[in-house]
Amino acid sequence: MTYDQDLQIIEKYQKEIITLSRISALLQWDTQTYMPKHANEERADQTSYLAEKIHTKMTADEFWEAVLRLNEDKSNLNDKQKRIVEILYKDIGKSKKLPKEFVVELAKERSLSFNAWQKAREEMDAEIFLPHLGKIIKLKLKEIEYRGHEGHPYNTLLDDYEEGMTVEKLDPVFDKLKAGLIELLRKIKESDIYRDQKKVLLAGEFDKDKQIKFTNDITKVLGLEENTSRLDLSEHPFTTTLGLRDVRITTNVRDDPLFSIGSTIHEAGHALYELGMPDSEQYTVISDAPSLGLHESQSRFWENMVGLGKPFWKHFFPKAKDLFTIEDDIELWHKEINQVNPHYIRIESDEVHYCLHVILRYELEKGLMDGSITVDNISDEWNKKVKEYFDLDVRNPKEGFMQDVHWSEGYFGYFPTYALGTIYSAQIYNQLVSEMTDVEDQIASGSFEKIKEWLGEKIHKYGSMRMADDIITGVCGKGLDTDDFLEYLNKKYGKLYRFN
Amino acid sequence: MTYDQDLQIIEKYQKEIITLSRISALLQWDTQTYMPKHANEERADQTSYLAEKIHTKMTADEFWEAVLRLNEDKSNLNDKQKRIVEILYKDIGKSKKLPKEFVVELAKERSLSFNAWQKAREEMDAEIFLPHLGKIIKLKLKEIEYRGHEGHPYNTLLDDYEEGMTVEKLDPVFDKLKAGLIELLRKIKESDIYRDQKKVLLAGEFDKDKQIKFTNDITKVLGLEENTSRLDLSEHPFTTTLGLRDVRITTNVRDDPLFSIGSTIHEAGHALYELGMPDSEQYTVISDAPSLGLHESQSRFWENMVGLGKPFWKHFFPKAKDLFTIEDDIELWHKEINQVNPHYIRIESDEVHYCLHVILRYELEKGLMDGSITVDNISDEWNKKVKEYFDLDVRNPKEGFMQDVHWSEGYFGYFPTYALGTIYSAQIYNQLVSEMTDVEDQIASGSFEKIKEWLGEKIHKYGSMRMADDIITGVCGKGLDTDDFLEYLNKKYGKLYRFN
Repeated sequence: MTYDQDLQIIEKYQKEIITLSRISALLQWDTQTYMPKHANEERADQTSYLAEKIHTKMTADEFWEAVLRLNEDKSNLNDKQKRIVEILYKDIGKSKKLPKEFVVELAKERSLSFNAWQKAREEMDAEIFLPHLGKIIKLKLKEIEYRGHEGHPYNTLLDDYEEGMTVEKLDPVFDKLKAGLIELLRKIKESDIYRDQKKVLLAGEFDKDKQIKFTNDITKVLGLEENTSRLDLSEHPFTTTLGLRDVRITTNVRDDPLFSIGSTIHEAGHALYELGMPDSEQYTVISDAPSLGLHESQSRFWENMVGLGKPFWKHFFPKAKDLFTIEDDIELWHKEINQVNPHYIRIESDEVHYCLHVILRYELEKGLMDGSITVDNISDEWNKKVKEYFDLDVRNPKEGFMQDVHWSEGYFGYFPTYALGTIYSAQIYNQLVSEMTDVEDQIASGSFEKIKEWLGEKIHKYGSMRMADDIITGVCGKGLDTDDFLEYLNKKYGKLYRFN
Repeated sequence: MTYDQDLQIIEKYQKEIITLSRISALLQWDTQTYMPKHANEERADQTSYLAEKIHTKMTADEFWEAVLRLNEDKSNLNDKQKRIVEILYKDIGKSKKLPKEFVVELAKERSLSFNAWQKAREEMDAEIFLPHLGKIIKLKLKEIEYRGHEGHPYNTLLDDYEEGMTVEKLDPVFDKLKAGLIELLRKIKESDIYRDQKKVLLAGEFDKDKQIKFTNDITKVLGLEENTSRLDLSEHPFTTTLGLRDVRITTNVRDDPLFSIGSTIHEAGHALYELGMPDSEQYTVISDAPSLGLHESQSRFWENMVGLGKPFWKHFFPKAKDLFTIEDDIELWHKEINQVNPHYIRIESDEVHYCLHVILRYELEKGLMDGSITVDNISDEWNKKVKEYFDLDVRNPKEGFMQDVHWSEGYFGYFPTYALGTIYSAQIYNQLVSEMTDVEDQIASGSFEKIKEWLGEKIHKYGSMRMADDIITGVCGKGLDTDDFLEYLNKKYGKLYRFN
């Protein structure tokens, strides 16, 4: 085989796998949005058929051998080709280390365990879920054994979602962040404002159809165009990419409008990233984010740094006020949407508490993977940490260790990316402000074009050409660093709770 | 290979092909309903990828050889297996006769020709479309040559949509129908009522959101449940099957509410048929209608025999009246929705004119296939017939031979099934009334359960186990026969136009 033939082979396989993945993404989108309920089983036949096809393509000998040959001598490859081969070598190599029977067993157990998690939540009975969780953990340990690890065993799983991330790198970052957050929370909770805080505007009525209208308006102003994107409703909000000109987000509507507004802005951030992937790489692994953390940096950038700020509401509050007929007090609105309150549930948490939820999971996952925590004491360990970090007594497992879907589906190593994205988002925002001094004026006037261009130029356009931390270093002059985020929180909440 | 092994092979291939077809159906549904416009090209990559996969599976040697072996000696097969082998032998054999280059060329030309048809309509310039139509016709003639034919060359194409149908069988049926319709139209047009007819209720305003609500209500009453079906909006109404528990229909909303109402009932008829396919045959060729004509018999049954009758409106008119605030005159409403008016466009035509439109196309298609008509005189021949049958002067090709999409996509032999379905629907309704004397009372009380059960028992449950005409003979004691339809029209319109 010549270089050119091998390059053609990997081009062909990438195109097929990406095409199949997008078809699969449509099926998943439809399942969560419009599919009639009784079609569940038939749909499962369809999605599992595609999953198997993707796996077969991904592990095909012809593909793997071409990657191996190209990987052996990269001297004739250009930078893009080098990076593609590097990514493929890593991704396929990973699958290649797992025996087929193991893959099948894990897939089966994930589905059983997910069902058990749902049932356990419905019946408020952790015993239904625990044996499955135990089995999933055993299988993940087995996976680490197959794939090998350097340093902490958890590193193998971390790397799946954040290439190059390790416990050794993450521990000091999270320790510093945890200390900073706990200190900040202490100050907030000692303030008079905290003691007396209540909700007035947000306690009003927010018509659900109007929430849908409002969130649609927001996506349009943020720049999601109807020719290339959609907003629909689903049980859990998500973003999915059906093509570089077809990125879809969803939201859900509750009594408190912050859920639909926050999740819409969050998903819109993901969508803007996906829509900004390099066009020429439509059918290569380059047209993807290099890590989930970097992806999350985009959603958190828009959700928190932009969407929770006063400038944003200078533009949107008048619209909200008209639509929902609430009192005309933007200061009060801004205070209420930024109220700090401990909560059992991660996805219901404010900006300050949020990362503590993530760190809690990170600490437990590490323990589960090195054996210092087991499925027998997971609930107790969880509750102990909730007491320690949030001063809350977990009332039931649905508010405790059974609140997230991730573990039931075997996603260990995923949670940290939520905090990484949050940390990155503050670094990115700081850098943006230093380069573009009128950012807040732009936001206040509902003009997001320049900000999006900046993000596109600095981050989106690379796709996976560079690793996440390299991209951040390129933008900010330094890699992952919690200082910006902690400073941002201290400044903002010091003002809101008047302790500075 | 043993019998059992061969049976396993054909089972496996059917399941894969049906799974792929349903995935493909979701893509097509989404393309017509919710897909962002600029995703067109990416979507084409996805659909053509699946189409190629389906074709490859369909013509795989392993599959074909198993079918050939089973077809050679069917003595050990049960009835169902026999029928499956018979259908597969026919369907695959058809593909096998076409060289791969020909299939690719036809597919490519279909797509070019469809684009040319759209452009020609936009620019009102037949010259853009005619060369492509010429090429498509040439390719269809080539296809007939490859596949061979008995009797008229057009028979090969007719059989694609209506198994066993031939020009020799169809000519006398359509001749009789044509004569009957022309005679009936003469009587209608000579009546005083026809001369003085106008629209009063239907000239009012019909809010589009309310039309959507009304059509949704209709589907629910007809028995399309939200757990297994959906109604959405698309440019052209259609029905598509994503599974036996996921059948979706669409409609479109115009000023005149008859379009949304009529098309919804029509598509609901198709959907009820699909939802009634035998559950146990989910993944075999049995879970499909034996012909398009029989499928159309179900849509026309509900659209015309039920949906245009007075009993139906006894139930639905009060709801329509409330929703649209129109005058409370059900007699007038019934007259107006059944008004006979010649129209250039087939899909805008009333019950009496409709089949003449179909016969016109049938006569032209026969001519195109035996060479007595060519692409050079197709427009003139079309217009001559419109003058003869409808006494209308075609004003432009968009109202003439370019009105339907079918020819641009190479669907020759398809049109007759619309008339066959219409003829069948009257036969079926007559038989139903003779067996269930209170049908009209049931309809008038909005109760469709027994009618659906009857259709399910007599028609739906068979899937493709029997051929269309055998099913009709089983239900009605005779096969295709225009008498019922002509009698029905004469009785109904004799009363409406008072010439009996």
